[in-house]
Amino acid sequence: MTIQLSHGSGGKLSADLTRDLLLPRFANAALNQLEDQAVLSMPPGKIAFSTDSFVVSPLFFPGGDIGELAVNGTVNDIAMSGAKPLYLSLGLILEAGLAIATLERVLDSIARAAKTAGVTIVTGDTKVVERGNCDKLFINTSGIGVIQAGIELGVKNIRPGDKIIISGTIGDHGITILNQRNKLGDNISLKSDTAPLNGLIQTMLETTRGIHTLRDPTRGGLAMTLNEFSQGAGVGIELWEENLPITSQVAASCELLGIDPLYVANEGKLVAIVAPDGADSILQTMRQHKYGKNATIIGEVVPDHPAIVTIQTSLGGKRIVDMPVAEQLPRIC
Amino acid sequence: MTIQLSHGSGGKLSADLTRDLLLPRFANAALNQLEDQAVLSMPPGKIAFSTDSFVVSPLFFPGGDIGELAVNGTVNDIAMSGAKPLYLSLGLILEAGLAIATLERVLDSIARAAKTAGVTIVTGDTKVVERGNCDKLFINTSGIGVIQAGIELGVKNIRPGDKIIISGTIGDHGITILNQRNKLGDNISLKSDTAPLNGLIQTMLETTRGIHTLRDPTRGGLAMTLNEFSQGAGVGIELWEENLPITSQVAASCELLGIDPLYVANEGKLVAIVAPDGADSILQTMRQHKYGKNATIIGEVVPDHPAIVTIQTSLGGKRIVDMPVAEQLPRIC
Repeated sequence: MTIQLSHGSGGKLSADLTRDLLLPRFANAALNQLEDQAVLSMPPGKIAFSTDSFVVSPLFFPGGDIGELAVNGTVNDIAMSGAKPLYLSLGLILEAGLAIATLERVLDSIARAAKTAGVTIVTGDTKVVERGNCDKLFINTSGIGVIQAGIELGVKNIRPGDKIIISGTIGDHGITILNQRNKLGDNISLKSDTAPLNGLIQTMLETTRGIHTLRDPTRGGLAMTLNEFSQGAGVGIELWEENLPITSQVAASCELLGIDPLYVANEGKLVAIVAPDGADSILQTMRQHKYGKNATIIGEVVPDHPAIVTIQTSLGGKRIVDMPVAEQLPRIC
Repeated sequence: MTIQLSHGSGGKLSADLTRDLLLPRFANAALNQLEDQAVLSMPPGKIAFSTDSFVVSPLFFPGGDIGELAVNGTVNDIAMSGAKPLYLSLGLILEAGLAIATLERVLDSIARAAKTAGVTIVTGDTKVVERGNCDKLFINTSGIGVIQAGIELGVKNIRPGDKIIISGTIGDHGITILNQRNKLGDNISLKSDTAPLNGLIQTMLETTRGIHTLRDPTRGGLAMTLNEFSQGAGVGIELWEENLPITSQVAASCELLGIDPLYVANEGKLVAIVAPDGADSILQTMRQHKYGKNATIIGEVVPDHPAIVTIQTSLGGKRIVDMPVAEQLPRIC
């Protein structure tokens, strides 16, 4: 059984797909109306709104798949503002000829990830294109969350003296995908770190003070996120290489391939820029959460060299960490 | 100048694309923060949330293009709930090798359409896939609108006796795309009806009473929308063929190609199901608006044959209007 162009026609096969594949997995009061939009009651407060398309290849990889990534990616983008993610939309672009069993496996994963993250899929859209006009399956998720009064995270809050915390090891997702693509060997115990970080963030915001901004270092890796912070706030950033948490497998793969782990994508990590006097307490709180147990202070914001990120290497030298320019690894998310 | 994989890397070329192509066209307070999510203040009230992916081929056609369609499509899906559309997200999936001039033309069109519809693009995402893994350019737009207190449209409101109004001629969009694909000849003055309908709906809701539900008959055409209404509300629907507004060009093309215009997509039309005693006043209001000037009562909701749509033909017969089953024309939106 495969996807046919008629599954995207808006006619009977589209309705069958909604009834047989989507509603049993995602049923909820808003979606069940089968209107072209969800009508939602929102708690008071500002909202956070985010979108992400997912084109990862392969669709399935150790530690996750495109469906889990699509939920966690948008959940995390919303949560990084300090918002509690509530509702997601699900836009599917399917290639005619895709096995329905493959689609079902991805939809199961989406449903599971949404439940784990505590979000509801309330509206959606499915398009089908001819064979050869997309690669199996692309997913867009957009989402909405609500921000509690008093929370105002953002690059604008970053100050010299702030500490930089990473919630765990770097490079796991990107190196896992690279390993799958290049079939570097199955004996390497690599897996994606894809995870919903809204629970960790909620705990951090409820129990600590001094969080200035949060971001998940996905495409472009930690190097890109820190360059964005440094340029956006007009401050310098100094990293300490010996503090960077990295698994021995990822370190070995990076060395083998000549890749700098600072530029490799993560899908379940966050960078927190925090006030210096709050840093230790924030770190302790993070370490008690399963997605923050390897949290580490990896550097600080400095008044020197505004808009430039530097790293103190383990050998005692210092170099500039530029924005990544060339694409090392397309379609990692 | 073409799109390269590095434009989707999340690195420097991604940042350049945002700075050079997106911000100059879409700049606003939320987007300019360059965070991974927009933080928005919403007026009080329920919200409507909708998503749509656009894969239309060709990208440009008489009367519009994929960019205009992507804005109007989501604006309309939000507006059909009675909501005022406020904010859109923009998710781009680009094929490596796409001419940047083509992307710029589409982005110009998106900016123009958003301005016309009165919505702001507040967040976005761009992915690039290798040549041959998508067809030039796919767009996802998701959006949020706010519903004024007291407005509760929906299929659940449909009652026997209600009148069915279409806001104008049917089949224009689908037949235009079909004509472009099959190169049936340039002398036919066909063009897409793509249009933002939020202004028309706002006027209808402010000046009339008795609107029970609204929907835009896009993929699957009027036949699909009315079957959804009929099945969703468990009522019969009777159409009057001689009242169906259709241009002579679309009628001629449909006859030539053996296509029933009831099944052809529209991108700037709405169906309103309205209380019988409000129908005339609603019709008059619609006809004063540029997107409703050919509005017509085309049938009524009946207590007989629940979940079935019938049509009284011009020749005096009566037949059933089924849901469309096979795909006549893929990728019309």
